Amino acid sequence: MTGTKKDNYYAILMAGGVGSRFWPSSKASNPKQFIDILGVGETLFQTTFKRLSGLIPAENIYVLTNKKYVDMIKEQIPHIKDEQIVPEPEMRNTAPSILLGALKIYKKNPNSLIVVAPSDHWIKEEADFMDAIQSAFDYAEEDDRLITLGIQPSSPNTGYGYIKYDKDAGEPLRKVERFTEKPGLKKAEKFLEEGNYVWNAGIFIWSTKFIVASFKEHLPEMYSLFEKGDEMWNKKEEKAFLEEYYTQAANISIDYGIMEKSDSVFVIPVSFSWSDLGTWSSVQNELPQDENGNTAINSRLVVQQADNNIISTSNKKIVVLKGLSDYIIVEDKDVLMIVPKSDEQEIKEIREKVMKEFGEDLG
Amino acid sequence: MTGTKKDNYYAILMAGGVGSRFWPSSKASNPKQFIDILGVGETLFQTTFKRLSGLIPAENIYVLTNKKYVDMIKEQIPHIKDEQIVPEPEMRNTAPSILLGALKIYKKNPNSLIVVAPSDHWIKEEADFMDAIQSAFDYAEEDDRLITLGIQPSSPNTGYGYIKYDKDAGEPLRKVERFTEKPGLKKAEKFLEEGNYVWNAGIFIWSTKFIVASFKEHLPEMYSLFEKGDEMWNKKEEKAFLEEYYTQAANISIDYGIMEKSDSVFVIPVSFSWSDLGTWSSVQNELPQDENGNTAINSRLVVQQADNNIISTSNKKIVVLKGLSDYIIVEDKDVLMIVPKSDEQEIKEIREKVMKEFGEDLG
Repeated sequence: MTGTKKDNYYAILMAGGVGSRFWPSSKASNPKQFIDILGVGETLFQTTFKRLSGLIPAENIYVLTNKKYVDMIKEQIPHIKDEQIVPEPEMRNTAPSILLGALKIYKKNPNSLIVVAPSDHWIKEEADFMDAIQSAFDYAEEDDRLITLGIQPSSPNTGYGYIKYDKDAGEPLRKVERFTEKPGLKKAEKFLEEGNYVWNAGIFIWSTKFIVASFKEHLPEMYSLFEKGDEMWNKKEEKAFLEEYYTQAANISIDYGIMEKSDSVFVIPVSFSWSDLGTWSSVQNELPQDENGNTAINSRLVVQQADNNIISTSNKKIVVLKGLSDYIIVEDKDVLMIVPKSDEQEIKEIREKVMKEFGEDLG
Repeated sequence: MTGTKKDNYYAILMAGGVGSRFWPSSKASNPKQFIDILGVGETLFQTTFKRLSGLIPAENIYVLTNKKYVDMIKEQIPHIKDEQIVPEPEMRNTAPSILLGALKIYKKNPNSLIVVAPSDHWIKEEADFMDAIQSAFDYAEEDDRLITLGIQPSSPNTGYGYIKYDKDAGEPLRKVERFTEKPGLKKAEKFLEEGNYVWNAGIFIWSTKFIVASFKEHLPEMYSLFEKGDEMWNKKEEKAFLEEYYTQAANISIDYGIMEKSDSVFVIPVSFSWSDLGTWSSVQNELPQDENGNTAINSRLVVQQADNNIISTSNKKIVVLKGLSDYIIVEDKDVLMIVPKSDEQEIKEIREKVMKEFGEDLG
C-alpha cells in the first residue's frame, strides 16, 4: 500500500443514535456511543475512532452525528477538526446521512474510498477487521461494487438482520442474494444450517463515486434534493443549506434505499468476534463475569446468593446484592433501574414512561 | 405548672449511636438520628429535640453524644449552646453517659428533674407523650422514684425488651417487678396474654438527686470515678478530666446497672404509638405505602409487578423496579444495597464486610 493510496481512504462514522436500550446509563444527552458502557476506560466512540485510525488517516474520518453531540465528540477526540464533524439538523435514518457524508467527501477527493461504520459496536480481533476493510477497499477500487462485511454467525441470533449470499461464486467476495429482516428462531436456525447467511453489521465499503452514482440511480429524489447543495459542501454555507433541506430527505435506511435495490452488492464474510452491543445481555457476553456469573461495570460488587446479574453504576459505586439473580441493575445520578434480564427489551418503554412522568431530560 | 417548676425540668438526649442497621443510609459519619430516615423533612434528632422543647426549656436539654457529631448537632439545632452538648471521648453504654449528664445537671440545679430519652425513636401522639412525661415528673418530684415509660404492646414484638409490673398495685404508676431481655415469640405472646408487660422504650424520668444517689448505691465504682470530677463539671477542665477518666467507666447499660437492681423502679404504661425504628421494616410500618405496599423514602418510584419493597435513596432518585418484591433497596452516594427484607438483621454484618473490603469510612 502506498502513502498516496492511503490518502484516498475515508470513513463515515455513524454517531447520531441514542441507544435507549441502555437507559439510564445511555440517554439522549449522553448516548451509548459516547459512554464507557463496557467499563474499559474509553467510550465506544473513542474505541471505534482509534480502530479506524489504524488504516484511515485520522483527518479523513468524518463523524455524522446530531448537532447536540458536537462538543462531546471534540472532548473525546481532542485532535478532531471541526470539518470532520457533520452535525445533522435533525436525526434521520442512514440513507440521507451517508449521502451527505459521501457528497462532502467526493468534493474533497473524487477518487476516495469510504468505509461506513457504526460507532457503538464491539469488535474483538481488530487486526482481522483491518484486513477485511483493506481487502474491501481493494475490491471497491477495482470495480463498481457496494460491499458489506458479513459476520459469520456464531449462534442463531434473532436480534440481527442476515445477508444471504450466492454460495457458488466468488471467494472471499460473495455476491449478495438478499438482505433479510431479523428472523424468528426457527428461521435463524435454518439460516445457520444453510451456511450462506451472515449477520449484517452495518459496515459498508465503496468508492465515493459509485455510492453517489447509486443514490442517483436508486434514490433519485434524495439525490436531487442534495444536488442543490453542490456548491456549498465543506463551506460555511453548508449549515444553512442543511437546516433548510436536510429534513426534507426521506427517512429511510441505506439497506432499504440502496442495498436491497442495487445489483452490485457484495459481502465479504468475516469471522472476527463482533457484537452490536444491542442490549445489556449482549454487553455482558463480551465482559468478564465473577464465579456466580455477575458482571460489574464501573462498580464494585459484594454478592451473596446472587447470580447472573449485570450491574452498572455511574461512579464505581459499591453494590451489595443478596438473593437476587438474573437482573439488570443500572444506576446513574438521577435514576436507579432494577429489571429482570428477561425484560431487557422493555427498557425503551420504561424510559418513555419515566420521561413522560418526570421530564424529557431524564431520557 | 409554674414557671419556676418548669425551670427544674431537664433532659438528657442520647445521641451517640451509629444505627448500623440502616447502613448505608446511616453510617458512623452520619448516623441514623442525624438523617431524615423517614423522608419527612427533618432528622429524628430534630424531631426529638423539638418534641422535648414543648415541655422542657430548650436550654435545659443536654445532648450526650460522640465528639465527632458536635458540629452536626449545631447545624441541626442552630440555637443550641455549646454547654448543652456533652461529647463523650469514647462511646460507652448508657450508664456512664447518664451519670455524666446527671452530675453536670446536678451541679447546675440540684432540684432538677430529668427525662432521659433516645434521639432516634418515633412517637406519633406527641401530646400523650408530653402528658406522660409531665405526670412522671410529678411522681419523681413527689418521692424517690426511678420511673420509666412502658409502651402498651400492640403485638408480640420480639425486637423489644419487656417490663413486667405488679398488676395489683398503683395506677398509673406501677411498681416494676422485672426487666426482661428480648423474648422469643412464644414468650412474647404469653407476655401479651398476661397483660402486665410493656415495652421498654428507654425513656426514664427521675430527680437528679435520686439518680445520682442510685448510682452511688448500685454502681459505687463508677460513682467514685466520676466523683473525682466534681470540681470540673461545666468548666473548661471537664474535657481533660473526661479524656483521662471517662473510658475507665464500666461499659454497662442503665437497665443492667441501675434499673434491675433498685427497689424504687416504677413504670407508667402508656398507649401512644411508638417505635424504636430499629430496622427498615419498622420504619416502613410508620410510613405510607403505595397500592402495592411499596414505601419510597426520598425517592420517586416507578413500579411494575413489584410489591412490599422499601426504597430509600440519597437524593430523590427515580427508582424503577420490575418483578421485585419484599426487598430493601438503599442507595447513598457510595453504596447501593439490595437485600431481601427477611435478611434485614444481616445488614450490620454486610456493613462490616464492606468496611473491611473497601474502607472504614464507608461504614
